[in-house]
Order: sequence, then structure tokens, then C-alpha cells
Amino acid sequence: MQESSGELQLSPVTRRRAYQEVVAQIQREILAGRLRSGDRLPGERQLAERLGVSRASVREALRVLEALDLVRSRTGTGPDSGSIIVQQAGGGPSRDLEAGGSLGGVLLMHTALEHFALEEMVEARVALEALSVRRAATETTADHLEVLEDLVVAMEAPGVDPEPFMRLDTDYHLALAGACGNRVVAYVMRSLRSAIDHWMHRMFEHNENWSELRAEVAAEHRSILELVRVGDGDTAAYEVEAHVRKAHERLKA
Amino acid sequence: MQESSGELQLSPVTRRRAYQEVVAQIQREILAGRLRSGDRLPGERQLAERLGVSRASVREALRVLEALDLVRSRTGTGPDSGSIIVQQAGGGPSRDLEAGGSLGGVLLMHTALEHFALEEMVEARVALEALSVRRAATETTADHLEVLEDLVVAMEAPGVDPEPFMRLDTDYHLALAGACGNRVVAYVMRSLRSAIDHWMHRMFEHNENWSELRAEVAAEHRSILELVRVGDGDTAAYEVEAHVRKAHERLKA
Repeated sequence: MQESSGELQLSPVTRRRAYQEVVAQIQREILAGRLRSGDRLPGERQLAERLGVSRASVREALRVLEALDLVRSRTGTGPDSGSIIVQQAGGGPSRDLEAGGSLGGVLLMHTALEHFALEEMVEARVALEALSVRRAATETTADHLEVLEDLVVAMEAPGVDPEPFMRLDTDYHLALAGACGNRVVAYVMRSLRSAIDHWMHRMFEHNENWSELRAEVAAEHRSILELVRVGDGDTAAYEVEAHVRKAHERLKA
Repeated sequence: MQESSGELQLSPVTRRRAYQEVVAQIQREILAGRLRSGDRLPGERQLAERLGVSRASVREALRVLEALDLVRSRTGTGPDSGSIIVQQAGGGPSRDLEAGGSLGGVLLMHTALEHFALEEMVEARVALEALSVRRAATETTADHLEVLEDLVVAMEAPGVDPEPFMRLDTDYHLALAGACGNRVVAYVMRSLRSAIDHWMHRMFEHNENWSELRAEVAAEHRSILELVRVGDGDTAAYEVEAHVRKAHERLKA
């Protein structure tokens, strides 16, 4: 028998905390298919007993799962109370960025911390928007086109104020993402968009020439919609790229 | 004075819980620039006192901020102990998917819950990989090229086993993402990749014709690297798209 020649790769033991074990176990159950969308988790007390941890650890784990948008908790004692596995990704309130942990909120925070530049966010958004209109041009349904049409008509009305216009603008871009038929692309795009919105809002407040700007943006939205409608994905992708970059430049000005 | 005609838009009051208020306040401080990368948060007891909440609520909030990869906590009493605002997005251990809340882990969970199809993940990845090699072809540095070269050489060695090869493969694609110079694109791509890896691993275990498969994948990686090196972003994007789709098909077979 020989002693190790010093090539052992030992590293410090990092013990997972109790709440991390609880999160990991619930994630494993999801991966194994034993926990499914809409399933209700056992109550806090029951979970604590079965997992052999404190109720405080269970509660911390549930908060984390909520923040990750995997579990939704309702208080009370009715049939809807308790912790439910979410039934839809990104179903949380997308505009309430500060309420918790949407991906959009996380990207926003990393931008605020200067881990990301706003330009990098915009470029990533440009790439995904181009992809999504390209796909929307072949994949979209009459329902999606109708939603987009209604939004563009509302934006074309001369009297719209900045605040509701911004909301229509967001809805239009999210509807484009939805029209592409790829839920992952739509999810990531919605997140990028909501992170960028925070900065857009800031810049928007200081804008002059409102009616001119509104008319320009609405005309560009109209043009992209019509290209999607006739199935010209290449031109639509080109225009949406130019539109997003221009919007960003305009707001910086 | 007249009574409301029933058009009031009242909705149930949703009270934020204490821990959500704490999360929101810390996020606001980050947005305002008063909390910056590397800053240390006050201790649990001090936070609880200043915010007028229980220590349990503070702890829940810190768990959430950790899960969102915004805060890193170390136990002990040294200069590195306590809760520190992270200095780099996605700095957590990317392969330890079950440990918590990387975006990759969240995407993986949503795929397991069938909110996303694996195909949608792959398509989103294809789009971002194409974008990243296109940019890498003009933006990359000698350092990045050297890392990529080393990885390809290691993959070209005939004796590599599946397990280390998979790791080299992951590192190669992450290095490509890094070479594009856009940290948001790299962050989202890394997340998609780590979510897909879980399924790739599963499929990989059942694969036959290992040495043939290894040689094919290595050759494709070599080809993409050389295209990036000579600055031919268009062809590199085309090849990376084909490569990712083919890899996925191969593994399904």
C-alpha cells in the first residue's frame, strides 16, 4: 500500500443548508415527474416533518421557489390555498419588477450593478426580436394578428398620452414574441423587455416632440405588422432590428 | 353627490409579506446605486432592527436574494463573512443545477413541467449561438481563440471518454458565447445550455458508436473555430446552427 503522491483533488467541504436541501428535493421531484404543474405541495408543518427540518427552513425554501417562479403560494384555508406548482412559466406580474424574482427583474438588477451594459441588453433583445418576427411571419395565427392589429390601431390614435402608449408599445412587442410560437424565446424576450422598460421609462419622461415621436413609432409598428401578415419574415426582421435600435437611440437623445 | 355606477375597478387587496418588502427595498437600493457590486449588507439583526421586521423575515429575504444570484452569503465571522452583493452575473456554480436558482435551473424546471418543449429550448439556443459566433468572428480576442484552440485539441484526442468530452463540449460552447463580447447573450446562452445539458446527459448515456460520434463532433468544432478565426461570421453562424441541430438529432436517435 502506498500513500497518495499529493495529487488528490481535495476541496473544502461546503455543506448545503437545510433550506437548500428542501429546494433541491422539490426540484428533483419535478425533474422526476412526480410533481407536476398545478400540484399542491403538502403544508408547511407536514413538509417539515417528512423532511426532518424546521418549519423555518421549509418556509425559506418555499420563498425561494416562489422567487424562482416555480411555486405560487396563497394564504387562507380554501381549496386554492397553500403552495401550488405553477402552471405557466412567467405567469407572474411582469410589470411588478420589484416584487420579486422574475428573470426581467434579475437582468435589471445586474444592469443596475453594471454587470451588464444597457447596450448589451438592447443587442440581445434585437437578436431575439428579429428571430421572433421571422418565425411569426410563417407561424402566426389569425388570433395573434388580430391582437396586433388592435394594438397598432390604438397606437395610431393621435391623442394617446405617453404613459398608455408605453403600455401599448410593450404589449405590441410581447404579442410579437407570442406570435413566434416559441415559448422560450417569448419568455426570455419578455424578460429583456421588462428590464429595459425601466430605463426606457426614465428616458421617456424627459422627451420632447411627443406627438411626432408617437406617430413615427406607430408607423414603424404598422409596417412590421403588415410584413408579418404577408409572410415576409426577412424584411420584417430587418425592420424590427432598425426599429428597436432607433427607439433606443431616440430615447437616449 | 352620486353613488358610483358600478364601474369602479376594485380588486382584492394583496398585501406584500414582510420578506417581500425587504427584497424590494434592497432591490430599490441597487437601482438607486446606493448598493453596489461587492458591498456588504448589514448583519441580520441590524437589518431586522432598521427595517422593523423579524429576523426570520430578513433571513427569508436573503435566501431569495441568494437564489436570484444577487447576494452571496458566507457563514463565519471573518472579513468575507456575511451577505455580499455579487460582483458578477451568473458567477454561481453553473453545473450544480439543483443547488438553487440559476436561470438555467429555472429553465430546466419549466421544461420538466412541460411549460417549454425541449425543441423550443434548442431553437432559442440555436438563435443565440448563431448570433454569438457571428459577433465572435469580428470581436474575439487572441486569448479567446487560444482557449477555444486548446478545447478543440483536447476533443480531437482519440481516447477521450464520453464524460470528459461532454465537459469539453460545454466549455467550448460557453467559450464561444464568451468570445462574442455580449455578456447578456453569454448569460442567457449559458443558462439555456445548462438546462439542455441535463437532457443531453440522459440521452448520451444510451449512445452507441462513441468513437465515431466523438470524431464528428470534434471536426465540427474545429471547423467553426477556424471560421471564427478568419472572421467569416456568416459561414460560422450557418455551421453552428447545423451543428447544434444535428447534435440534438443525433442524441435523440
